[in-house]
Formats: sequence, C-alpha cells, structure tokens
Amino acid sequence: MSRVYNFNAGPAALPLPVLEKAQAELVECGGSGMSVMEMSHRAKDFAAIIEAAEANIRKLMGVSDDYSVMFLQGGASLQFAMIPMNLRRPGKSADFVNTGSWASKAIKEAKITGGVNVVWDGKEESFMRAPKQSDLRLSADAEYVHICSNETIGGIRFPVFPKTDAPLIADMSSEIMSRVVDVSQFGMIYAGAQKNIGPSGLALVILRSDLIERCPETVNTFLRYKTHADEKSLYNTPNTWGIYIVKLITDWVESLGGIAGIQKINEDKAGTLYGVLDSSDFWKAPADKESRSIMNVVWRLPSEELEEKFVSEAKKAGMIGLKGHRSVGGIRASIYNAVSKDAINALVAFMKEFEKANG
Amino acid sequence: MSRVYNFNAGPAALPLPVLEKAQAELVECGGSGMSVMEMSHRAKDFAAIIEAAEANIRKLMGVSDDYSVMFLQGGASLQFAMIPMNLRRPGKSADFVNTGSWASKAIKEAKITGGVNVVWDGKEESFMRAPKQSDLRLSADAEYVHICSNETIGGIRFPVFPKTDAPLIADMSSEIMSRVVDVSQFGMIYAGAQKNIGPSGLALVILRSDLIERCPETVNTFLRYKTHADEKSLYNTPNTWGIYIVKLITDWVESLGGIAGIQKINEDKAGTLYGVLDSSDFWKAPADKESRSIMNVVWRLPSEELEEKFVSEAKKAGMIGLKGHRSVGGIRASIYNAVSKDAINALVAFMKEFEKANG
Repeated sequence: MSRVYNFNAGPAALPLPVLEKAQAELVECGGSGMSVMEMSHRAKDFAAIIEAAEANIRKLMGVSDDYSVMFLQGGASLQFAMIPMNLRRPGKSADFVNTGSWASKAIKEAKITGGVNVVWDGKEESFMRAPKQSDLRLSADAEYVHICSNETIGGIRFPVFPKTDAPLIADMSSEIMSRVVDVSQFGMIYAGAQKNIGPSGLALVILRSDLIERCPETVNTFLRYKTHADEKSLYNTPNTWGIYIVKLITDWVESLGGIAGIQKINEDKAGTLYGVLDSSDFWKAPADKESRSIMNVVWRLPSEELEEKFVSEAKKAGMIGLKGHRSVGGIRASIYNAVSKDAINALVAFMKEFEKANG
Repeated sequence: MSRVYNFNAGPAALPLPVLEKAQAELVECGGSGMSVMEMSHRAKDFAAIIEAAEANIRKLMGVSDDYSVMFLQGGASLQFAMIPMNLRRPGKSADFVNTGSWASKAIKEAKITGGVNVVWDGKEESFMRAPKQSDLRLSADAEYVHICSNETIGGIRFPVFPKTDAPLIADMSSEIMSRVVDVSQFGMIYAGAQKNIGPSGLALVILRSDLIERCPETVNTFLRYKTHADEKSLYNTPNTWGIYIVKLITDWVESLGGIAGIQKINEDKAGTLYGVLDSSDFWKAPADKESRSIMNVVWRLPSEELEEKFVSEAKKAGMIGLKGHRSVGGIRASIYNAVSKDAINALVAFMKEFEKANG
C-alpha cells in the first residue's frame, strides 16, 4: 500500500472503498456493458444512479419534498453569481455575513450585480470567529441572508446557525454532510462537491421550492435554478461521473451510521488533533475555540522556517496537503469525512516527534 | 468481453485503452500515492496532467499562441450564455446561422440578452443541409458570426466553413477533433467534451486573444473568459477528472496518427455506413449528401414500427443508442472517434440481415 495520508483542502481524500468500487466498475458498470462515463444521461442505467444519489442525500440530510436537490456544474464559484441573479430580485438587496475568504468571494460577486449589506464583518478580528446572533445587524427587507458555514482557509465554522426572517443561504462546501444540520432552517444549502461528497466539477444545490420562482426572465436558461429543478438536473448533460461518485460516497456515509455516525467520528478526529495543539505552546491554533472547524484545522509553529520544515518532513513521512493557504500561512490539516482516524493518528504521532526534535 | 457496441449521441463511447488506463490508475495515479480525483488542482501532479492535455490539444489541432485553450464547466449550454455576455458588446448584435436544434438553442439564449441576426435559416428545408457561402446574409457590423459546425440531431455538418469578416465562432461539440480544421479561420471554437474528447461536465474553449478583452465589467468573474484565460483554467477548481480523461484521449488520438489519421478512419467508417444506406430503398438518409455528417448518421426505415423493431433487435444483438432523437424520429448512429470499425462492421452486418428479414 503506497497511498499517502491526504490532508488536501480540496479536491481531497476520497474513501478507499469508494475508489475501489469505482475502479472495479470503470470499464463496465453493472450489467450495462459500458463505463458510467459512456452512459447516456437520459438512459435507464444512469437514471438509476442519479435517482439513488438524490435519494441518499434526501435520506441522509433529512431533505423534505419542499426542497429541490440539484446537481449543477461550476462549483461554489458559479453559485456566487447565480444566487444573486436568481434570488435577489431587481432593485432589492441581500444580507451577507463576512467570515473569511469564501464569504468575501460571495460578497464580491453579489456586489457586481446589485445591492449587498454586510451585516457582520470579521475582518478586524482577522476572521478568527463566527458571529453570535447578537452581532448581526440584519436588514428588515433583505431578500436573503448569506453565510459560509465553514471557512476552509481560516478554519472556523458557525457552531450554531443564525436565526433570520429572510431565507438563510449557506455555502457548506467544506462541511457538507460532516455534521447533523436541520435543513428546514435554510432557504438554500449549496456545496462544491470536491471536499466532502465527490470529485470536482460538481455542485450540490438544495433549494426551497418557493425561492425557485423568484428568478427574473432576463437570466439565461442555464443560469436559472428553475431550469434545473424542473428538469431534475438533466436540462443539459450533467457531470455524470461526478454524480456516480456522489452516489457511492453517500452509500458509504450511510454504511457508517449516516451523518450522525460520521459526525461522531469527525468530532473524535478533530478532538484528537486539537488536543495536541492545546497541549503545548509549541503549537498555536488561532481560531476562537467555540468557532473551531472540525473539517479544517489551522495552526502555526514558532517560526515560518519550522513551518516549512514541518510540511517538508511530513511529506517525506507520507502526509501531504499540510501547507496552510498562502493568504494566511502556517499549517492546515483538512480532515474531511474520508480522512481516516489512522491518518489523524499518523499525523499526531509525527507532530509529537517533530515537537520533541524541534521544540 | 461483454461490452456493448455504443452508438450513443453523448455521453458516448470512449476508447477502451483509455478506460483501461484510467481503471489501472484510479486508486493511485503514477507515483502520487492518490487518485487523480484526490489531487489538489494546484499541485504538481495535476499541473503535469492539465499542461499535457493543453499541449496535446495545441499540437493535434495546430492551435497557435494567439489563442487561449480553456477547460470550463457547464458544457456547450453555458457557452450559449457566456458567448454573448462576453463577446457581444452592449448595444451591438451578432450573426447566427440556424442549421438545427443546437444552433437554435444558441440563438434562443443569445436573444435573451441582446441583438441577434439570423443570417440563414434552414428550418424551411427541415434542416437537411448546411448553407453555402452565397446563402448567408452577413451583417456589416456583427460582433461575431456563430455556427454549429455539426448538428448532432439532424446529422449534418458544414463541409466547408463560411468566410466571414467578423470573428467566426463554432460550436464543434459533436465533431471536435474528428477532422482537420484550420483553427486560424475561427475567433473561437468550443465543444462540450462528452462526445469526442472526454466525459461530461467539461467544455473545451479555444478563444483568440483579442476577443478575450471584450467582456464588460458587469459580468460576474466566473462567467468572464478573461478570468479563466488569465488563470489557465484554475481560477476555481476545474473538473480535474474530466481533464485527466481528455489528456488520455488526446494521447490516444496522437497514437492513431493525430487528427489526419483519425479523419481517415472516420471517413472510412461513415463511408461504409452511408454505402449501405445508399444501396437500397429500404433505408432513407434524409440529409443532403454534401452536408452529411461523418459523426452522426441519421436515417429512416419504411415505417415507425420497423424503426422500433430495428432499435429493439439491435439492442438484443449488443448495439445500443440507435434510436433517433425524439424531435426527428428514425434511427441515428453516432460514430464518434472512439466508435471502432468493428462496431460499424457489426452494425452493417446487422442491417443487411434486418433488411433481408423485413425488406
């Protein structure tokens, strides 16, 4: 076995049983006589795959029939453009909470096409925490309130989601299906697939039905949620391979006891890692303790030289993807659903050795 | 070997050697210790893949440095929206040639956001041919001229491309890399990957540099060609798996003698099939002979009942995807690059038997 321990921020580790199944079926899937990549997106064989993927998501996340589940393309980046186009009607504004790099990108794109109110900005506090309910200056007439529920780069998350009168929209790219969430609290949940639920080139959108009707007629067909909701993600050819992998991954999540089961595993993994970070002054985890992400764990070492050495020696020891994002520096371990406890144990053992040698 | 002969219109057959290589590398690609799907899009291992894919395309198609080569998402459908947004400046119009279903979709989307001149419309002739140069009523001040070079549903193509003063833009989704094309004749060539060069969820865009600057500031970052050209398709996470398959497929095309080599094979395959269609009144291929596609071969039988029987018996004999598009009926065999001469021979043998039994 020469597979590395993969702490990439995304695209990221996928569950080994999923990869092995995809490998076994790659040339010929089931009795279809062809690869999933060769199936017509309108044929029965693929219908079974996309319907199972949607059914898995609905069951795992508890998504009611009030919501459409869509498999789109363009990742969260296209959603940053589509959400305001579709859900912020002409002349109106939307509320945004700025918790870091990804929330900022959503704000930047929404400003290009209309009105934006930033109702809390964590910039002055270097994005070290999510806001409390009392921090938010929500607008009375906002079309929606947008949050990034987990910031991949800063390593923070909302421990509790805001209560809002306007529909709450969350970018959950880096924590989708990692913890139990009450979907009915949200008008929309979306996520680029490439961190927790699939390969890149796919975005999951869960949208409440009443919001689907908001879109103005001036928006191109492909860019309207209504198009994809009405056509059940088959208006045009979707990323069929990506949807197939989502199906396999959601099967795998189900086999681990669903999202409640995987949340337990994730809390144990994150707890182990934060435990080491809190055990010594050699490590410094800057995020506010209450806002700590259980998906992206960010920390510093006493010097940039030691950080470089850490990343380079970790790589030699078979652990990759540990360099922090260039905008914040330091170390980041992305420990998504598919990152095993074994990987955490290996990382923690390496950290202890590294501290002994360099502390 | 239980693989079927796959005549799907798209997603479609992929070359077996490509599938076998992808299978072998799925869990661990090269010495990377991970699946291609697990690689960071910004890491060295993936850089080697995307750079090789681009280099292959440039070499095979003869794309000069005057053009950007981009791997985008959303297929041709998103291009129908992006092209007018980016390349038709406010208050200006573009010329469109209407050759069938796909050209019509491009026209419909362009009309949503601005001025469109349809400079030739094949509708009255039931889309049975591409126009000649003298048929076109080109506008003096068009921002560009848009064609669909091969209509997947009607089974026709431009045998010769129009000469235009304004930049010529071609949707080549269903014939990209199937015949030698002089890229320098075009301002832009684009293609959904899922017919000839890869899996679904990916679009190839080849765009001349001077056109990249046209985009107005009011367009969202993700929807601007300049964004993806400047960032070499890595502004956001691209469809990494799809790009990897494009790399493998372009390696395979190169091994067959490049596009000139594969054009010969394609002409032989199409010639064999049209030969049978022309040999008897039992079959009727409605497309104008000069405009016949060598990728999508469309024909009728004496009755709809016989057409249904043909599709159903072909399926039993291991040949799938032969039902014509619901909008035109009849039979369609999509015989893209990856459909082997063996598949054509099997189809032709089946057709002869079918005619004997039902003629």
